[in-house]
Formats: sequence, structure tokens, C-alpha cells
Amino acid sequence: MSKLAILTSGGDSPGMNMAVWAATHAAQARGWEVLGIRQGFSGLLRGESLPLSSSKALPYARLGGTFLGTAREPEFAHKIPAALHRLQQAEVSHLLVLGGNGSLAGAARIAEAGFKVVGIPCTIDNDVDGSDESIGFDTALNTALWLFDGLRDTAEALPRWFSLETLGGDTGFLAQAVARAGGADVLLVPERPLPLEVLEQNMREALGRQGFAFLVASEGYPELMGTLERLEQALGLRLRHTRIGHAQRGGRPSGHDRLLARALAEHAVEALAHHHSGMIGLQQGQYRRVAFEQIGPRKPFPKDLL
Amino acid sequence: MSKLAILTSGGDSPGMNMAVWAATHAAQARGWEVLGIRQGFSGLLRGESLPLSSSKALPYARLGGTFLGTAREPEFAHKIPAALHRLQQAEVSHLLVLGGNGSLAGAARIAEAGFKVVGIPCTIDNDVDGSDESIGFDTALNTALWLFDGLRDTAEALPRWFSLETLGGDTGFLAQAVARAGGADVLLVPERPLPLEVLEQNMREALGRQGFAFLVASEGYPELMGTLERLEQALGLRLRHTRIGHAQRGGRPSGHDRLLARALAEHAVEALAHHHSGMIGLQQGQYRRVAFEQIGPRKPFPKDLL
Amino acid sequence: MSKLAILTSGGDSPGMNMAVWAATHAAQARGWEVLGIRQGFSGLLRGESLPLSSSKALPYARLGGTFLGTAREPEFAHKIPAALHRLQQAEVSHLLVLGGNGSLAGAARIAEAGFKVVGIPCTIDNDVDGSDESIGFDTALNTALWLFDGLRDTAEALPRWFSLETLGGDTGFLAQAVARAGGADVLLVPERPLPLEVLEQNMREALGRQGFAFLVASEGYPELMGTLERLEQALGLRLRHTRIGHAQRGGRPSGHDRLLARALAEHAVEALAHHHSGMIGLQQGQYRRVAFEQIGPRKPFPKDLL
Amino acid sequence: MSKLAILTSGGDSPGMNMAVWAATHAAQARGWEVLGIRQGFSGLLRGESLPLSSSKALPYARLGGTFLGTAREPEFAHKIPAALHRLQQAEVSHLLVLGGNGSLAGAARIAEAGFKVVGIPCTIDNDVDGSDESIGFDTALNTALWLFDGLRDTAEALPRWFSLETLGGDTGFLAQAVARAGGADVLLVPERPLPLEVLEQNMREALGRQGFAFLVASEGYPELMGTLERLEQALGLRLRHTRIGHAQRGGRPSGHDRLLARALAEHAVEALAHHHSGMIGLQQGQYRRVAFEQIGPRKPFPKDLL
Repeated sequence: MSKLAILTSGGDSPGMNMAVWAATHAAQARGWEVLGIRQGFSGLLRGESLPLSSSKALPYARLGGTFLGTAREPEFAHKIPAALHRLQQAEVSHLLVLGGNGSLAGAARIAEAGFKVVGIPCTIDNDVDGSDESIGFDTALNTALWLFDGLRDTAEALPRWFSLETLGGDTGFLAQAVARAGGADVLLVPERPLPLEVLEQNMREALGRQGFAFLVASEGYPELMGTLERLEQALGLRLRHTRIGHAQRGGRPSGHDRLLARALAEHAVEALAHHHSGMIGLQQGQYRRVAFEQIGPRKPFPKDLL
Repeated sequence: MSKLAILTSGGDSPGMNMAVWAATHAAQARGWEVLGIRQGFSGLLRGESLPLSSSKALPYARLGGTFLGTAREPEFAHKIPAALHRLQQAEVSHLLVLGGNGSLAGAARIAEAGFKVVGIPCTIDNDVDGSDESIGFDTALNTALWLFDGLRDTAEALPRWFSLETLGGDTGFLAQAVARAGGADVLLVPERPLPLEVLEQNMREALGRQGFAFLVASEGYPELMGTLERLEQALGLRLRHTRIGHAQRGGRPSGHDRLLARALAEHAVEALAHHHSGMIGLQQGQYRRVAFEQIGPRKPFPKDLL
Repeated sequence: MSKLAILTSGGDSPGMNMAVWAATHAAQARGWEVLGIRQGFSGLLRGESLPLSSSKALPYARLGGTFLGTAREPEFAHKIPAALHRLQQAEVSHLLVLGGNGSLAGAARIAEAGFKVVGIPCTIDNDVDGSDESIGFDTALNTALWLFDGLRDTAEALPRWFSLETLGGDTGFLAQAVARAGGADVLLVPERPLPLEVLEQNMREALGRQGFAFLVASEGYPELMGTLERLEQALGLRLRHTRIGHAQRGGRPSGHDRLLARALAEHAVEALAHHHSGMIGLQQGQYRRVAFEQIGPRKPFPKDLL
Repeated sequence: MSKLAILTSGGDSPGMNMAVWAATHAAQARGWEVLGIRQGFSGLLRGESLPLSSSKALPYARLGGTFLGTAREPEFAHKIPAALHRLQQAEVSHLLVLGGNGSLAGAARIAEAGFKVVGIPCTIDNDVDGSDESIGFDTALNTALWLFDGLRDTAEALPRWFSLETLGGDTGFLAQAVARAGGADVLLVPERPLPLEVLEQNMREALGRQGFAFLVASEGYPELMGTLERLEQALGLRLRHTRIGHAQRGGRPSGHDRLLARALAEHAVEALAHHHSGMIGLQQGQYRRVAFEQIGPRKPFPKDLL
């Protein structure tokens, strides 16, 4: 009798609940039992779990966050034996881990110990190596654009100068997508710090062309607030700053994220059914099984995005 | 032949476009000509206008901002004769002014000079004396709640501590409504600075009760960022800060704001048809004509809101 | 020791969850116990309940529907003794009923039997007598407008002719608000059936003026679909029909509905604390206690809304 | 001197405005002039156009519909010489056509006549052969899901049985995505009519499992309303029907559609700069130039979607 355990780990991202439902749905279709583990790896180490069914998980599938709860467990790599013990205790045969780079590294440690575990990339930062997309990125993009559009509404009525700070950790994938989809004039990403003169010039050009200017910055840009203050002094004008903050983690998952979550979850269950360990990644429109060893610590930021 | 001129002034608020359409629609039904003035009082002084019709204004009615454009003209009170001259030049018989306290004060100056002018309260701050509601407030509340809900999504998945900064100028009406509708644990409004110990205690109680805490603050709270930093030190934890900023001015007007805008605009046109000057205000569910002299510089913040 | 029981009954409306949380929050602040009854009066008769706390109810406050579940129990009036027995069994001292006309009538039966019960008007139809507003109406208006705006987007790109069918039972309050806030050209409400010639003429005028036309109809309009077909034949063009259906019942409650729900719930708990029975209604901006006997079977549809 | 003409044709789809802005922006960066043609091929035949600039197009980029207007011109294939004459009159060197299958066929006719023209797939139906995605599909999916989620809110509060009718013409791509992302129990697409017995059985299984059931149907399903009525009779229950209708064409374009629109538009301008004619399609994550001859009349509906 197969029993699948599912956990969500690290920072939550919208679509995690959809993936949990889809994996549960697919596992039950194979006649498997399904166990939901609370608070990620921390809950696994404490043995906190609940039995899952498709109809129990469905009401959460359209909601942000994760109803299983999540946590950060930096020391997990040193506690693999305890985790394995808990899994055996609960008679779990397969493990599904939903999370970002740190969580997938934890899953890799479990796989190294010989347990069948598959990971799915879930992070609004979209910085997981081996997958073009991560669950939550599209929703976080839409959340930021919704605010960007609101800023444009007022900018077109009364010209001002705006900066929009997105999440993204120390990567620029999210800020870059927001800037490109929103038609921003200036982009600040950690991967490419700009000299103040260049920043100032880009802003002046935008101001000259259209009377206002939009700057989009990733939270991870070095000394972001100081940079913006120096820019304000150089330009002699006040930037109206919007910081989305953690609100960008929430919200109902977009259709794109739900389809991605469902497909990744279904491929994950199938991979586990074939006794495969590793990550399911989306590569050029195809869902592929990626060995944990092949996954770098972080997806490189492509030059052509700049 | 009657000719109505309409201008939007000061900070834009969602629903202004709806009010412009509704006033145009009502004026045309009376056989009046309608003129739209660009960039508020500044455009009036420059004589910048365009002929309006109901079908020309309708496509904007569902959009935020103001398609007429707006501006801040602090010196306007000293330029009334020039404004009157422009109005006579354009053969304008009635003037409709959409804006907040400053703009309505400007309208009062024009009325004092004997010109028929009616004002409508438009500001997301909802601080116009003589009206329980202002156009844009409801939409700005929904915008903030949308972010608040996103913060709750992630807080329930991974407990953290959050502060949400709203607009509102140096008043607390907007922050108070956001905090109450969102179920915040702590509220910071300029009308009631709190000792740090009280702040800290309220946060600790919330943390003890539910594992996370939500603080809502108005941008006008004295030394807001410094206060939050001292609170973080006192609590020994990091507050995740979201600043909506000017995105709160934008967005499609809510149904409530559209109904309010339409009703105020229709009463304004009727008041003008009866050679009345003043503001149309909503008082206890009734639309009333309020003499400019009766309008205080700012609506007092009711104690029972605290 | 006081114990408050809360139930949601009849058709659900967005904001019910907020009212349940707010009432629980207010009751706990008074040191009361709180009991949630499942599936409305049906669950009461079956004695299905769960203990409630503010922190248990809070996660639902921002969601549509009702986490307590609801049901229709047309025979309830004949089962009052059984209901009272269940309430005494559970040592309930006060009852709060959230629902529309039918549910409030049920609450009145319980009050007649001498039990302390307060009702709050919850229905997107906004047809509860004795209250200017009902919880859910504002959200349902915004839901319809969101679709209306989508129709305008495409109508302005490629002129067509549209009909939008709203909920509202056999009343026109909701359709009227949608038509007015959306700037519809024709309104069909059950309270005022129109001759086909009048309909046709109004549509032709709109088509002549702007190239497209919008008709908003309440689901309760007599022979709605047949009327629209006859109108299509008379006009010689096809109306693109959108039926919102029960999607209009759902969605996150708007800020306005959340503030209304919180205020009504807090006044309800205070009324119960003063051993009052009846409904809490909003009348001209004031929250008032309304005796059940004073509540008519349905709020009359005001002529001035036509 | 190069001059680019841009037109939007056929049914509008959200993201068209973004593509117009992005193409204008890219063309101006090359020093080209840009001309916007009104009402698609009809406007081209009438010679209706306006000069475009990046800053003039930008305010529309975040809005649904198409500010250039569109039209259906079924006879266009017989009027190519007149179209070419208009293009030469206006000294247009390159043409960009945004639309679906019919519009791209029109573009192919112009290319056959030797004029440099590139097409971009824009349709919420996502049925353009040679491209995995079309502009507007993602937004239309999100619009439907927003209603689907509203239906679930009320279904979970008070179990009922629901049918949701999407657009999609006589294809099932859109309905299939909605059903899969929303977790529907039954899917009706024109590509696979089902015997009533199968429909009834699938619904009964869902009802037995979870107490309610969701059916998603494409508008093009043969005899849809009759089928639903027969299903209601067979099940002995009433299906609550929601028809999104043309509201699904509107709404602000999603982030995904904006990124897709911008990338397709930039590749289109580059293709034109290299004197290339054809369509830009997205194939397995890559943007490719597709010869008009290689584009089938409609993208085949993949079996694995069922």
C-alpha cells in the first residue's frame, strides 16, 4: 500500500494549495493514501500531520498561502535521520516537497538517504535552477502590476515620479518581469548595480519624454533606499515610493499558476509512482524530471533580460 | 443658453471621471452645453478646455484618475479675477468643481465673486467637512484591503509581523477604516499619537493571542518610520512593512464610489439649475446643499472612531 | 455565564463571515462563550455546532460564503419548540441570526417564544425592510460592475449590443444599482415591466447616440429570456447576453460590506447584552434596533429609483 | 524612411493595446514612423489612420479592448488591391496585423501580393495554428476563474450544482483550461460531444463525492442549453447557469499576456526590419517566425487535453 506525504516549505507562494490538491487528487486516483505534513520540515521532525483527501484539499486550491502551513528549518540538513524515522513511523512510501531552493536542497538530502522524494519549484522569486517557471511567480507579477496600474492612473492625472519596490530576495527576476510588463522607465536589479549618473540620465530622459517616470526596483538592490534618496537629490524631485512587501506573496493564484501547479503535481506523482527522485521542472514548454544533483544553487540571471 | 464648465482639482481620486460623466449627462438632459477644463484651476487660468458630451466622457467613467487632468494651484485665491475673466470669455454660466478641501476653498472664492459654482467632495482622505463621504474613499479602502488580505494569506502560512502604511495625508480616516475592515490589531493615526509602551503592549497581546500581528498606520503619523523602528527594537522582531503609496489613489472606482459620484453630480447640476452655489454633501444618507461658509477647513476626527 | 450562538441562514452573502468574526470578537470581549451553529436553522434543529473564538473565525472574515454553512428550512416556523430545546440543551443564552427575509422571520418566531434573539440583514438582494442596506449588496454590485466594465472594453473596440442579467430574486434593487453605477441604457426590473415598444425605443436611442447599447435586467423580470428574444427580433440585431448567476453571491467581501458587517454585529451583541430582541438596521446612517413586528415582509421598491 | 502601420482586426482580445504600444516603442527605437489604422481592415480600406507614438499609446497598454478599434471584414480577401493602394498612398513600408485566424489569413493575402507584413496571434480562443499561445487567452482564463471561484464560495456554503459557460467559439481550448485550473468535475467541449449517460454519470460521481458539482462548457458545444436541460431532467436537479459572455473578452490584460504581447511585438518589428513576412509564434518557449503558408486554418485540439 503506497502512502504519499506532502509538505510545503520555506516562503509560501500562491499556487501551493493548488499543487497540494492536484497531487492528492492524482495520488488518490492511483489508490494511494495521502498525508499532509504541517509546517514543512519542522512539522516533519515533530511528526505533525493530517490525513488528506481531494475533497478536503479542494476548498483551499483557489486560495493563496498554504493551508498545511510552512516554516524555515535551516538546520534540517543535519536532521535527516530523524526525518526518515518520522516518515517510516508514519509508513510513508513517497514524499512530495513544495518549495524554493532551500526546500529542494532539503529534499535532495532525503533522496540521498535513499528515500523516494520529488520536489516542485514553488517561489515567487522564480530563481530555482532547472525550471523556467516556479509556482507563484505569475501571481506575484499580477499583484505588482495591479499596483503599477494604479500608479499610472494617478500619474496620468497629476504627473509625479514613482518608484515601485517588489519582492524577489536578492534576485531580479520578479522586478524585471514587473518592469517589462508595466513599461517601466528604469529597472534596478541586484544582478546589475548602476552608477547614479546612469540612473539619473535614464530618469531625465523619461521625464523629458512623458512628464513622469516609473522606476521598478527589487528589494535586494544594494542600498536601495539610500540610492533612491541620492537619486532624488540629483534630480531635485521627490520619488513617491510604493513597497508591495509581503502582500506580493499572497492573493488568489492566477490561472497560469494553477495550471502550472496542477501539471507539476501530476508529473510529480507519476515520477514517484515510477520510483523516481528529483525535481519536476518546466523547460521550454516541456515538463521534465531533473536529478537533484543537476540543480544549481540558483538559476543564473540571463543577460538578455537586461 | 446655459453652459456648464467642469474641472477636477488637487489630488485625483477614483470616481472623479464618473462624476464628470454624470454631470455632463445631467446637464445635456437640460439642454446645456458642457465644457471640460484641463488641469484644474491652472488650466482654467490658462483657458485650456475641451467641449464635453456624455458619450465622449462615458469611456472614462469606469477608470481611475481624471481624464481632464488635475493640478495643484496654491496661489489660486489671489487669481480670482483672471479666472472669472476666462469663464466669461468662454461664456460659461455655471461651474462645477471636483476636489478636496483646497479645491473647494478655491470654489468658495469664485462664489464670493458672485459666480454660480458648486463643489463636490472628492478625496480618498474623506476629510471634507460637511459630508460624511467623499468620492474615492471607498475605492481606496478596497485597494488597501486587497493588500491587507494578501498579507493575511502569507501570515497564516508563515507567521510574521506586519505593518501596512496607507495614504490619508495628515488625517486618519482612511487608516482607521482599513484597520477596522481588515481586523488590524494596532492602529496609528495622526489624531492620536500613542506612547511606545502602549504600542508594544498591544502588539504583544496580539502576538500572544494569534502568533502574528497587524499594524495599520496612516502616512501622516508623526515620525512613522522611526516609531516602527523603535517598536521593532522593543519587540525584538522585524516588522514587514508594506507602503501602498500613491497606488491607493488609482484603480477602477468601486460601485459605491460610482453611485456616490453620480448622485452628487446630479444634485450639483440641479443646484446650479436653481442658481445655487455651495457644496453638495452626504449627511446621514441625505444629499444636502451646504453653504461654503458652513464648511470647516477639515472634518473633525470623531473620538468614537478610536 | 452568557453563551452566544451564531447561525447563518438562507442564501449566503459575502460579509457573513466578517459578521460572525466581529460578533465573536465583541462577545468574547464581554467574557461570553460563543457557539457556531452549522447549516443555519437545519443545523440548529439537529444540534450541530462548534465552539468559536475570535482567532478561529478571523481567517474566514475576508472570504465570501459562510464557513458555518447555511441551508433553507422552509418548515422552521413549525419547529420552534425543537429549536428552543436545542438552545437550552446547549445552555445558549443569546442567539444571533444572519440572513434575509425568511431567516429573520424565523428569528422572529424564536423571539416570540421568549428567547433573546437578534437578527442582522444579510442578502445581496438588499430587500430587507427596516434597513437601508444589507450585508453583501455592495460586494454583489462590484462583482456585476467588474463584468459590466469588461463588456464595455469590448463594446468600445467592436460595437455590439449587450444584456447583463443580475441576481436579485424577484426584486430590482441589485439590477438598479448595477445599471446606475455602470451607466446602462435600459433597466429591466420586476417592479416595472415595460411594454416592448418602450424597450425598443430606448435601445434605438442608445444605439443612435453611441453605436452600442447596454441593457441590465434582474433575473426576476417576467419572462426575461422571451422578452429579450422579442427585443432582438424588433431591433433586428443580436444581444450578447451575460448571466452572472450565483457567481454574484461569492467573492471577497468589499470594504463597505466588511465595515457594515462589523458595525451591525457589534450593535447586535450590545443589543443582546441589554436583553433586546429584534433586528439591527441601518437607517439614514444610523444603526437602530428594529422590533421584529415592525419589519414588513419586503422592503418596498422606491419609485424614485426608476 | 521606414513607416510601420499597425492594425487590430477581428474580435478584440486583452493585450492588443500592449502589443500596439510595444511595437510602436520598438519601431521608434529604430527611427521608424508609426501609423495606427482604425477599425482593422475596414479602416485600412477607408484609409482611416492616426500617427502613433510610444507615449501616445502607453496609457492604453494596461487596458483591455483595442484603442485603434477593430472590425470584421469577411470580404477583405477580394479587396487586396484597394488595401495595397491605401498603404502606398500613406507611404507605409511595413504592416503589423494583430488578430486571430481570419485576420492572419487577411495578412497572408497582403503578403502574397508582395507587401511586407507580419502577424501576431491575438485571440482569447487560443486556436491559432503555429503558436502555443495567443494574446488574451491568459486574461480570459483568469476572468473565468474569478467567476468560478465566486461559484465555489457559495457552493461550499450552500451546496448547489453549477454550470459555467465560457467563450471559445467552436473550440474548447479556453473551456478546457478553465475546467482544469478550476478543478471542474465535467467538461463539455465541441471537439468531444459526450453521450448524456456519460455526462449524467460524471455528475453523479461528483455529487456523491462532494455534495456539489461543477460543469464547464464551451459556448460552441452542440445544443448546449438543450443538453443542460436534458441533464437537469436526468439528474432531477436544477443547474445554476453562469454565462460569462463577452465580458470574457475584456478586463485589464494579465501580466502573462502583457509579457507575451511585448515579446511578440518586438520580434515582429525585428522580423519586419529584416524584410520578413509571416507570423511570430511561440513554440515550446521560443519565439519563431512562421511562414503564412505553414499556418493551418485552426490549431488542432490535442487529445491529451481531454
